[in-house]
Amino acid sequence: MTLINENFLKLKAGYLFPEIGRRVRAYKQQNPDIKIISMGIGDVTQPLAPAVIEAMHKAVNEMGCQETLKGYDDSGIGYEFLRKAILENDFNSRGVKLNPDEVIISDGGKCDTANIQEVFGLDNIVAVADPVYPVYVDTNVMAGRTGPANKNGQYEKIVYMPCTAENNFVPEPPGEHVDLIYLCFPNNPTGAVATREDLAEWVNYARENKAIILFDAAYEAFISDPGIPHSIYEIEGAKDVAIEFRSFSKTAGFTGVRCAFTVVPEQLKAYSQNGRAVEVNSLWKRRQCTKFNGVSYITQVGAAAIYSPRGKKQIRKIINIYMSNAALIRDSLTKLGYTVYGGINAPYIWVRTPDSLSSWDFFDQLLQKANVVGTPGVGFGPSGEGYMRLTAFATPDNVKEALQRIADRL
Amino acid sequence: MTLINENFLKLKAGYLFPEIGRRVRAYKQQNPDIKIISMGIGDVTQPLAPAVIEAMHKAVNEMGCQETLKGYDDSGIGYEFLRKAILENDFNSRGVKLNPDEVIISDGGKCDTANIQEVFGLDNIVAVADPVYPVYVDTNVMAGRTGPANKNGQYEKIVYMPCTAENNFVPEPPGEHVDLIYLCFPNNPTGAVATREDLAEWVNYARENKAIILFDAAYEAFISDPGIPHSIYEIEGAKDVAIEFRSFSKTAGFTGVRCAFTVVPEQLKAYSQNGRAVEVNSLWKRRQCTKFNGVSYITQVGAAAIYSPRGKKQIRKIINIYMSNAALIRDSLTKLGYTVYGGINAPYIWVRTPDSLSSWDFFDQLLQKANVVGTPGVGFGPSGEGYMRLTAFATPDNVKEALQRIADRL
Repeated sequence: MTLINENFLKLKAGYLFPEIGRRVRAYKQQNPDIKIISMGIGDVTQPLAPAVIEAMHKAVNEMGCQETLKGYDDSGIGYEFLRKAILENDFNSRGVKLNPDEVIISDGGKCDTANIQEVFGLDNIVAVADPVYPVYVDTNVMAGRTGPANKNGQYEKIVYMPCTAENNFVPEPPGEHVDLIYLCFPNNPTGAVATREDLAEWVNYARENKAIILFDAAYEAFISDPGIPHSIYEIEGAKDVAIEFRSFSKTAGFTGVRCAFTVVPEQLKAYSQNGRAVEVNSLWKRRQCTKFNGVSYITQVGAAAIYSPRGKKQIRKIINIYMSNAALIRDSLTKLGYTVYGGINAPYIWVRTPDSLSSWDFFDQLLQKANVVGTPGVGFGPSGEGYMRLTAFATPDNVKEALQRIADRL
Repeated sequence: MTLINENFLKLKAGYLFPEIGRRVRAYKQQNPDIKIISMGIGDVTQPLAPAVIEAMHKAVNEMGCQETLKGYDDSGIGYEFLRKAILENDFNSRGVKLNPDEVIISDGGKCDTANIQEVFGLDNIVAVADPVYPVYVDTNVMAGRTGPANKNGQYEKIVYMPCTAENNFVPEPPGEHVDLIYLCFPNNPTGAVATREDLAEWVNYARENKAIILFDAAYEAFISDPGIPHSIYEIEGAKDVAIEFRSFSKTAGFTGVRCAFTVVPEQLKAYSQNGRAVEVNSLWKRRQCTKFNGVSYITQVGAAAIYSPRGKKQIRKIINIYMSNAALIRDSLTKLGYTVYGGINAPYIWVRTPDSLSSWDFFDQLLQKANVVGTPGVGFGPSGEGYMRLTAFATPDNVKEALQRIADRL
């Protein structure tokens, strides 16, 4: 008798977004002619930059020609042209020295943040923020690192760190010992950022506890404040204790193209039960080379093009469109009396629900009165109750229309 | 202290191909001017079909335009246009009825055959062929489903099924009970195929034992014998007990583009420890939607193009080039006195080493005398000792030259 992985049964039914989809579909069925504007799922609306499109056409042509065809990527970790462009532009430029073998290309930040836990033992204690991107938690549940969920959807054995207005949505290191710490800054869903001092505290905690920080920097391109670190490696000592995840999904509109990378410094160690230090970089490469087979060459060429002088300018222009959306959402809602957070260094705006409404009640109100879709904060954890996540990724026209409707109808 | 996943330490050092790479590099360093011909790694050499190239250019253009931009694939399992084309062409045409929700698109057959074990419990007994594609085994080791390896590189708790000339390289169901059975036909590395009767025996075994067959059909496009089933679902009752893996890597030269799919029939069940039947299709989708984020839209459009009338013709022409290579390898080596298997319904030729040489000794001889790279059979398992795997994926000119060199120099 083939047994299932029983840990899957612990997962709370459905991912947040299916439930949103269900409610939206139900509303549409009853109101087929109404135009619904999504400010919910963080999907991009601006097309790929022309430099990326040109590069991908060139790469497609190479694949159609025997002399330039690219098959398997022998390195298993991505083409060196891309890894070197990343190092130079994303890290060296900020004073962070890494070598190309520490950058491992993948097909998505979701995949990497989901898969990274596989190289670690099941006995590690995992800490996550509350609210949190559900993938960090669900993958640990599936692996068997947790007990069952309670009625709030929080799992036994996971340490949840509440992020509230009181702590600026940046958790402090816990009093207790934890081993694997997921941090995401700029944050999804709250839009909060961590200062240099915040991160230094975490790096110290990790060094003292021989813990590892899994630092999701998928939204670093949206940082506008020059004092905010883009990489955790800007903090001294972080290379000994942190893995960093980056993605082209939001930076360059690659949600439908699929490219990301993970930095695993060679000096980062984890331990066998008898205390032997093992390079996590080797473990991750072994994992990737055994369970993954690289990213489309065409995609990698497209990703590299965002580091060309033209590509950089074009990408910046797109990010500015989204950040103008964010500013408009912040300003308009603030004028309407809402309390809003985020949206300055992040494409997410974290809105306090009015009149102490629950997240889902405000969701329904937004949907039914303004025909606007947000993401209920409680879907990211109990500390998200009473909040709504709006994203800045809609088109400027849709953002304006959505805000006007909210002003007129709510 | 962050603990590693200790199961990684059980893995035998390195994957087969790094050792081949090491020996080839060492030889090249000493003999920099010599042209080495690879018949080792199964990577393609024919460029993508023109229909695929055209389709991908079109898709790239769509990504550069706001109206036609594709972001996340909401279904999480691939675009319906591709899943429907697959059903019609690969399954309905052979009398197999499936629905589009049973086809889940991914970025590679390696990934799918590596990841599928995650949805099953750790207490299942795994059976694999010997010789075997190492990914099936290594991923079960990493998950903790095995004990340590013995001196032959075989792991405790895994049931190895020897495939030898005596059983035509097709194993019979074991006398003992097993739960998860990896079968690959047409076979990598032996090039053997399973008849309808062979597969029916396996389906019966699985039904009787409530076991699940993980059927890797990555090479089905190379079947030339009309009597050989392309899909395990051509066998009655297989939908209750089998998952099938397919790939565009060899069928359409997608090794550098990354697209594949897995069929999980909705009627296929596995069991919780208290005996409750659970749909494996739901588990697999939950796994994929949590740890994966879809395949590049551009890639999926390219994959769908191979099902157009032009695409089909072009793909067939490419496969014929490889199968002419295979026929030439078989014929030439047979004339030279070698004993060869495979290469008729598969792009792999399984060559008995001459003079009872070990696989690695024959590898060195081929490399040093003929400057041809094969893959030592023993690298796929102890029953592969005394064999060499040659692939049909080199260019016809290189195949001819390699064979001439073997004729002249060995």
